[in-house]
Amino acid sequence: MIMPVKTSRRTLGVTFDSSGTASIRLWAPRAKAVALLRGQDDTPELLHQQPYGYWQLTTDTLREGDVYRFQIDGKTTVPDPASLDQSGGVHGPSRARTVEGFNWTDSAWVNPKLQDYIFYEIHTGTFSPAGTFQGIQEKLPYLRALGITAIEIMPVAQFPGDRNWGYDGVFPFAVQASYGGAEGLQKLVDACHAHGIAVVLDVVYNHFGPEGNCLPALGQYFTEKYKTPWGNAINFDDAGCDAVRNYFVENALMWFRDFHIDALRLDAVHAIRDFSPKHILRAIREHVEQLMIETGRQYYLIVELDLNDTRFIDPLDRQGYGMDAQWVDEFHHALRVAAGQPATGYYSDFKGITHLAKSYRDAYVYDGMYSEHRQRSFGVKTNGHSGDRFVVFSQNHDQVGNRMLGERTSSLVSFEMLKLLAANTLVSPFLPLLFMGEEYAETNPFLYFVSHEDKALIEAVRKGRKAEFAAFHDEGEAPDPQASGTFQQSKLEWSRLQEPRHQTMFTFYQTLIAIRKRSAALRCTNRNQLTVTAQEETQTLRLDRWCDQEHA
Amino acid sequence: MIMPVKTSRRTLGVTFDSSGTASIRLWAPRAKAVALLRGQDDTPELLHQQPYGYWQLTTDTLREGDVYRFQIDGKTTVPDPASLDQSGGVHGPSRARTVEGFNWTDSAWVNPKLQDYIFYEIHTGTFSPAGTFQGIQEKLPYLRALGITAIEIMPVAQFPGDRNWGYDGVFPFAVQASYGGAEGLQKLVDACHAHGIAVVLDVVYNHFGPEGNCLPALGQYFTEKYKTPWGNAINFDDAGCDAVRNYFVENALMWFRDFHIDALRLDAVHAIRDFSPKHILRAIREHVEQLMIETGRQYYLIVELDLNDTRFIDPLDRQGYGMDAQWVDEFHHALRVAAGQPATGYYSDFKGITHLAKSYRDAYVYDGMYSEHRQRSFGVKTNGHSGDRFVVFSQNHDQVGNRMLGERTSSLVSFEMLKLLAANTLVSPFLPLLFMGEEYAETNPFLYFVSHEDKALIEAVRKGRKAEFAAFHDEGEAPDPQASGTFQQSKLEWSRLQEPRHQTMFTFYQTLIAIRKRSAALRCTNRNQLTVTAQEETQTLRLDRWCDQEHA
Repeated sequence: MIMPVKTSRRTLGVTFDSSGTASIRLWAPRAKAVALLRGQDDTPELLHQQPYGYWQLTTDTLREGDVYRFQIDGKTTVPDPASLDQSGGVHGPSRARTVEGFNWTDSAWVNPKLQDYIFYEIHTGTFSPAGTFQGIQEKLPYLRALGITAIEIMPVAQFPGDRNWGYDGVFPFAVQASYGGAEGLQKLVDACHAHGIAVVLDVVYNHFGPEGNCLPALGQYFTEKYKTPWGNAINFDDAGCDAVRNYFVENALMWFRDFHIDALRLDAVHAIRDFSPKHILRAIREHVEQLMIETGRQYYLIVELDLNDTRFIDPLDRQGYGMDAQWVDEFHHALRVAAGQPATGYYSDFKGITHLAKSYRDAYVYDGMYSEHRQRSFGVKTNGHSGDRFVVFSQNHDQVGNRMLGERTSSLVSFEMLKLLAANTLVSPFLPLLFMGEEYAETNPFLYFVSHEDKALIEAVRKGRKAEFAAFHDEGEAPDPQASGTFQQSKLEWSRLQEPRHQTMFTFYQTLIAIRKRSAALRCTNRNQLTVTAQEETQTLRLDRWCDQEHA
Repeated sequence: MIMPVKTSRRTLGVTFDSSGTASIRLWAPRAKAVALLRGQDDTPELLHQQPYGYWQLTTDTLREGDVYRFQIDGKTTVPDPASLDQSGGVHGPSRARTVEGFNWTDSAWVNPKLQDYIFYEIHTGTFSPAGTFQGIQEKLPYLRALGITAIEIMPVAQFPGDRNWGYDGVFPFAVQASYGGAEGLQKLVDACHAHGIAVVLDVVYNHFGPEGNCLPALGQYFTEKYKTPWGNAINFDDAGCDAVRNYFVENALMWFRDFHIDALRLDAVHAIRDFSPKHILRAIREHVEQLMIETGRQYYLIVELDLNDTRFIDPLDRQGYGMDAQWVDEFHHALRVAAGQPATGYYSDFKGITHLAKSYRDAYVYDGMYSEHRQRSFGVKTNGHSGDRFVVFSQNHDQVGNRMLGERTSSLVSFEMLKLLAANTLVSPFLPLLFMGEEYAETNPFLYFVSHEDKALIEAVRKGRKAEFAAFHDEGEAPDPQASGTFQQSKLEWSRLQEPRHQTMFTFYQTLIAIRKRSAALRCTNRNQLTVTAQEETQTLRLDRWCDQEHA
């Protein structure tokens, strides 16, 4: 190990000691010289070369609030890859700040047991009229009334412009400025805890966005060994990988330690390519375990995973990666086909009611069977893993937003079917996740939107989106992802809640959630206390769950 | 699983039942029609399409000894990817044959314990004047007198022409015709067993050779997900992988079952890219376990591995891949640097005597330390793995042949140093491997040679070899790999054995081997019964080994 990550504090980017002296640390093995530039007309101040490609400087000239950049080899300038503040955008300078000074009021907060999590997925920009963390904060009484126990915030790493799902982030340590930045997020988390709500943060460790990624110029952040849908994979096992691994380990630790986040949701970890003896997820787990000892708090790691591979959730002592839980898209697919969705595309593998029953029983539908869609045998058995290792949903940002017209489920199925979908998720022996607005049958779409600044990229994204849906031209044209209107249309329309139909749905969700929380049998995630039978002819499914004496 | 592999017999290619009826099975999901062509002027006989991309035909028209090809979509013709006989070369037709009918005389043979293996690596083409299996067979009394317990034959899968190390094979099931083909190998194995010598076969499951590879036209044998030094990786986890996995599992089983091979040495398994929940090596292990039950014989799986990753040798119940042993190049590198070899290139990571001592203790030199050469932390601890999990050598085909002039160690170091190198290997707590000829200090080189037929490829190989050694032009020119003379020069010169110097070395090896076999302390591969101390100043190393009462 080049230098073990400190669990107690960040070491990358800028940190200040108690007297206000800045320590600067950058990994840039490709550089021959690195200088700090403060503001526009400043004199470069050279960083000192350290072993393993690091550059270091301790200085009193950089103060909190100052903007800064790094000058590489006397020529190009780049922002700080570990920047905490990119309020000038992804092409602008970094701004020095601390994340350690927040005045937390949540010392009494106790992270709930994972089995008590009921997730509510939020896209910050479209959740509230303001599109900010403050906008979420104002809705906390509402969410508490709904009964969910955790909000899950889509990625907040600084992305280009101010309209993005969050998966185009290029500064993993900088909280999107237009959402309210680092302090805005800290305030939100503190307020959530005051409302008894846990906070899950979606983080992206499998790729960087296509605009504003300054890393390749600095070091081997990427490897040509593996291809991902986004190009060369992030380098977790090739030359130079130690520093890249540490960069992400530090990132995970920062959210827990400095932002009091309760759980991370790691995006699409199947696209993380790592043949190291110790997988990066396992390395993150080990560091988080250490942090838990230091802070005395509980932190969860949850992965989005398209592999049906229990190695990810197997405990460390069984050579697993030790993740606490994983998303199960297959439950969703089986549920939607059972609800009448045409079995095309990636739904084509699913036989509604039978597969839904299988998912209730086994979480994974494909647990060794041959998948026609994937053209291979797929998955392993989940034996021995309790229900709280699996997160299920009847919709989420992807399942809604990856449709050409971004239709929410409420525009696709009947009101009664909406209720049935909600019930299916909330009575499952797994951890249920709602997508913002589904609880009152929001009808606005959730579209794919971006606000890139690079003209060529904007055109490429537009064309890509059109090409993706070329087969669907009967249904109209794919909305322009770059258009501000596409983003505006995707905002929740809270006034709908006043209408009886939407109020009815809200009350239905509220009641279901309350029943789940009250009923020991429904809350229980012991998968042995469950039977399920499916009848193809009548398209019915009977689910029995119990917990000791109680039966549902 | 599309169709489980049968351990009892081959299912791919051509098999004959007892009445001589041929069953033909081919995986070619990219084909729309497949026909059997016998000889030049034959009428095509259509194969029947089966699920999962297989094609099948049962016919009385194809007889043992007939040549055949497959016609794809009425146009191109290809040989059989599971051909057992390519005596017409890699571009020629396949020839139908059986490998089940050999008249074995080795029913009393018992595979030795792995800890008793002393390997002798052989390149068939250059070992004997004839360059055939028969040539090896004639030397068995000699090898028995030397005392080695196993020969390890470099790959024999049919390659282009008749001069090749074996790593350019393109028909994994066809034994190189110029060596003597399938029957020649069977005779050799039978004779080895009669002489009390085990047979290890080197097999290549990480790539196909650059000439005569007919697979891409047929199906997804390769994937673009991963890059290897040879281009796209063999597809073990992408769409279509089930059939590819079965192809290699069948291959491994064939060598044990139909050729009575005692151990496979799997080439460079670090270049096998497989993120499946079940790694292909683990799948092979499981099938081989099954075969062991059926035949009552012991079979070993040994891997060449450049990863210092114990997952490969961890047992199945510890989620490992269950390989019996692995090669440890690092022992060689430390030994050679300790012997005075300049620490350049991939030796640059090694500090002679200290690292050699570490390797005696821990097998891996890099077991978590940062490697400057690899630019990353490398390896894990080997705790809990006994010495018979590791194969060591002071030279092998690669370490000799990858030098520009292919100099054997005998041309590089003094006679006394040769003895010291031999002793270092043979007193180690690991499994020693000799490279043919080292036991009598053969001085002929072992050069890199090929006999491709494709002109452009020949030029590319020539250029590549020159470029590889461009920095070494002071030492002369890299010999032409395609020249017949390069191959001829690399043959062992057995007449040398008559000369006193070479006879002395032979006797030295013979004695050392005898001592190892006689001494319980030296034979023992319990790594706890060993101490080693190194003195940098005096460049000395003291190794103590014992076994209960006995001490060496």
